Amino acid sequence: MDAAEFRRRGKEMVDYMANYLANIEQRPVYPDVKPGYLRSLIPTEAPLEPENYEDVIKDVERVIMPGVTHWHSPYFYAYFPTASSYPAMLADMLCGAIGGMGFTWASNPVITELEIVMLDWLGKMLKLPEHFIAGTHGQGGGVIQVGSTASEATLMSVLAARCKAIQQVQASNPGQSEAEILPKLVAYTSEQAHSSVERASLIGGVLMKKVPTDDNYAVGGGMFKKMLEEDKAAGLIPFYLCATLGTTPSCGFDHITELGPICNKENMWMHIDAAYAGSAFICPEFRPLLNGVEFADSFNFNPHKWLLTNFDCSTMWVKKRDDIIGVFKHSDQPFYLKHEHQDYNHSSLLQNWQIPHGRRFRSLKLWFVFRMYGIQGLQAHIRKQVALAKEFESLVRADKRFEICAEVIMGLVCFRLKGSNQLTELLLKRITESREIHLVPCHLSGRFVLRFAICARTTDSRHIQQAWRHITQLTFEILQEPNH
Amino acid sequence: MDAAEFRRRGKEMVDYMANYLANIEQRPVYPDVKPGYLRSLIPTEAPLEPENYEDVIKDVERVIMPGVTHWHSPYFYAYFPTASSYPAMLADMLCGAIGGMGFTWASNPVITELEIVMLDWLGKMLKLPEHFIAGTHGQGGGVIQVGSTASEATLMSVLAARCKAIQQVQASNPGQSEAEILPKLVAYTSEQAHSSVERASLIGGVLMKKVPTDDNYAVGGGMFKKMLEEDKAAGLIPFYLCATLGTTPSCGFDHITELGPICNKENMWMHIDAAYAGSAFICPEFRPLLNGVEFADSFNFNPHKWLLTNFDCSTMWVKKRDDIIGVFKHSDQPFYLKHEHQDYNHSSLLQNWQIPHGRRFRSLKLWFVFRMYGIQGLQAHIRKQVALAKEFESLVRADKRFEICAEVIMGLVCFRLKGSNQLTELLLKRITESREIHLVPCHLSGRFVLRFAICARTTDSRHIQQAWRHITQLTFEILQEPNH
Repeated sequence: MDAAEFRRRGKEMVDYMANYLANIEQRPVYPDVKPGYLRSLIPTEAPLEPENYEDVIKDVERVIMPGVTHWHSPYFYAYFPTASSYPAMLADMLCGAIGGMGFTWASNPVITELEIVMLDWLGKMLKLPEHFIAGTHGQGGGVIQVGSTASEATLMSVLAARCKAIQQVQASNPGQSEAEILPKLVAYTSEQAHSSVERASLIGGVLMKKVPTDDNYAVGGGMFKKMLEEDKAAGLIPFYLCATLGTTPSCGFDHITELGPICNKENMWMHIDAAYAGSAFICPEFRPLLNGVEFADSFNFNPHKWLLTNFDCSTMWVKKRDDIIGVFKHSDQPFYLKHEHQDYNHSSLLQNWQIPHGRRFRSLKLWFVFRMYGIQGLQAHIRKQVALAKEFESLVRADKRFEICAEVIMGLVCFRLKGSNQLTELLLKRITESREIHLVPCHLSGRFVLRFAICARTTDSRHIQQAWRHITQLTFEILQEPNH
Repeated sequence: MDAAEFRRRGKEMVDYMANYLANIEQRPVYPDVKPGYLRSLIPTEAPLEPENYEDVIKDVERVIMPGVTHWHSPYFYAYFPTASSYPAMLADMLCGAIGGMGFTWASNPVITELEIVMLDWLGKMLKLPEHFIAGTHGQGGGVIQVGSTASEATLMSVLAARCKAIQQVQASNPGQSEAEILPKLVAYTSEQAHSSVERASLIGGVLMKKVPTDDNYAVGGGMFKKMLEEDKAAGLIPFYLCATLGTTPSCGFDHITELGPICNKENMWMHIDAAYAGSAFICPEFRPLLNGVEFADSFNFNPHKWLLTNFDCSTMWVKKRDDIIGVFKHSDQPFYLKHEHQDYNHSSLLQNWQIPHGRRFRSLKLWFVFRMYGIQGLQAHIRKQVALAKEFESLVRADKRFEICAEVIMGLVCFRLKGSNQLTELLLKRITESREIHLVPCHLSGRFVLRFAICARTTDSRHIQQAWRHITQLTFEILQEPNH
């Protein structure tokens, strides 16, 4: 394919993309395929000779689309949103053409430079404390974590905390080896935290304990303090807490104004994971939920969830860059990575903030999105989706057969049919089979609960109303059945 | 921006992409900016209100392009290539529109399905042993590692090996705790291996030893065996080797036919990192360099380097999926990830192969590239670039002032001016300052060496000839100077 053909095919692709998104409501949101469906639709080996582009593109509808879960359909209410916007798509196209890799500053100066400044822009939008802003002389700053969800941000914070804790113990007990210290270290997180937090501890080889939550599925200071005291009395060394703002099951908010001072006093690293909810903190009315971030050593959220920046873009800030860079401080930087601006200390080694060596030019997406929407446009998107969740909540509350299972603060509504879990399980089964809308369940205090998350950018009141009609129709049918 | 504007802007962007790549030779390959250049060119905060698209796009030339290192310029010879092709860009555009995330099978069936089959296609192209092919009943298979370079593949293999080694030691010594075993575990890699290998051991908290290389900068069986014997005698437990095919400094090849049987006998995990060179194994004439892969537990390379698949796409195969999935085996899978095909055991949990939780639809790029080039087209690309390296090698060899510093096997030529290191260092300084071509150095046996890697897809004989004229012109000037 030469440049001329790319011009033609690229423009056709732009139309295909626009058509796909414009007509997405006509596709069943959840695919009707069985595991292994695709293998039989295509050859078992790559072709020896080139094929025609027409044949490839025809196969997009024949092979690919039948297996797609349409996350951008306004009938998609599962998990949490993954963002999509035209400006972000345009930026990503440009990123594809520039196509270089960023690791050292010299490998692609603009990748380092724009990322640092965009994270400052975003940090200011969130009104993060000054120490998280890189500026020209700051000790902290932000980075786009390679990888896709908050998993890598959590892992990096665990590793940085582990490194720091070992150094601290060794400073006061010079004789102790890392191997002696490691089994005593203990990290904490909410029992409601995302599974990636537990993974981070598995990778880092440290014990992680789960803190029980209160009636709002949030961790408070009292229970946390009690666990710390017990563990310290047992000879363990508490060194890390991952607090969550907007948990995956119910969008609960840990009480970081209580947890932060405890962590600071105990010299523990506090990381805050606000993967989903973080985007909402650009709105003054939601910013109070972030109060307490001033006690944190690191903070992250995913603009690719709720800030109109296409997947993937997970952002992380640290109070002291040196803590996180310390994890990978090599005695010898490989020679092929040295360059004339080697001494440029200003976060120039973004590759030392993360596990992979290289990075895409992801900050281009943020730059396009921030400028094309403006802060007000982004706030409007958040507010609209929260209002839709409130609208859905009202519909549920008005129906005596249902109950709301957790406070609705952002774009997630947790609800269930009153009565046995089996009843709500059956309802979900019918919803999934019908493929008109798509949502997933969670467990809250032993109850089987449906999660209704406002996801697609184009979701509107009429979709919410239609979804509710569909749910109540299926409920009506279920309750008519002899067993119920 | 609505769909109609996206259609217009998207088509303009396609033209911009095509123009950028068509005229890339007119841009200086290496940017003339100083660290911090970008901050002063743009506001310190995001705009409150939306801006015009014209203003954003004008800033691409004003703000972005001056800081780009043009990896796809045919005058770029630094590091190793990062791939770029029109079919891959088209696939990535489509990926942007579909835009969903993949973690469980149900979250987006096609992401899991196409990835498994594409990795089978690619595995067959490389003639990998049958146990690396997933098929419908295989125990092994491949995955696209999220993250960007081979770093994550290496890390996953270290973690899997660590997990397996601890289980094995505990099986024969039931009383031993993980904390007792961990400090005794020792991993090995070449002194020439990529820095990411050492990072993997830092993250995994295991000791890593570097094996000295032979005259070809490769690790052989003799030296490795000697180290093993000494370490075992000292009470350590060798558990892991990362062998490299195509090292970063000189593209050296470890002797895996010697190393493999030793690892198998010692019950050690052998991982093979062929990040750059792996793509070449689709050519029968280079495939013998992969002999010995049958002894390996895991293997990875980066199609985003040399197989015309835009960054990022790093592929990894394992002999036994269960080994790698075991690292993250949770006692309790979170509830919101359960789905009706939960028991679909066939690699359905790709998220357990990697650190991040979600994944982009990267296999689309492979599918488009394989079909639009065909195996023959991809082989032609590899062969052309190796021929260009050979052509450059001949030019160097014909000039008595220079010497070749390592055997030229693939697309990398290591060379230097005879005499003191200072002389070659000065030559590189002049090359970098001139910005006509871009390359980076390495150290080989104490010598300062220039790495000339054939990178851009469009590099041709005339570029090689021009680069050599430029290098010899600068050399001529240097040698005219009084000091030399």
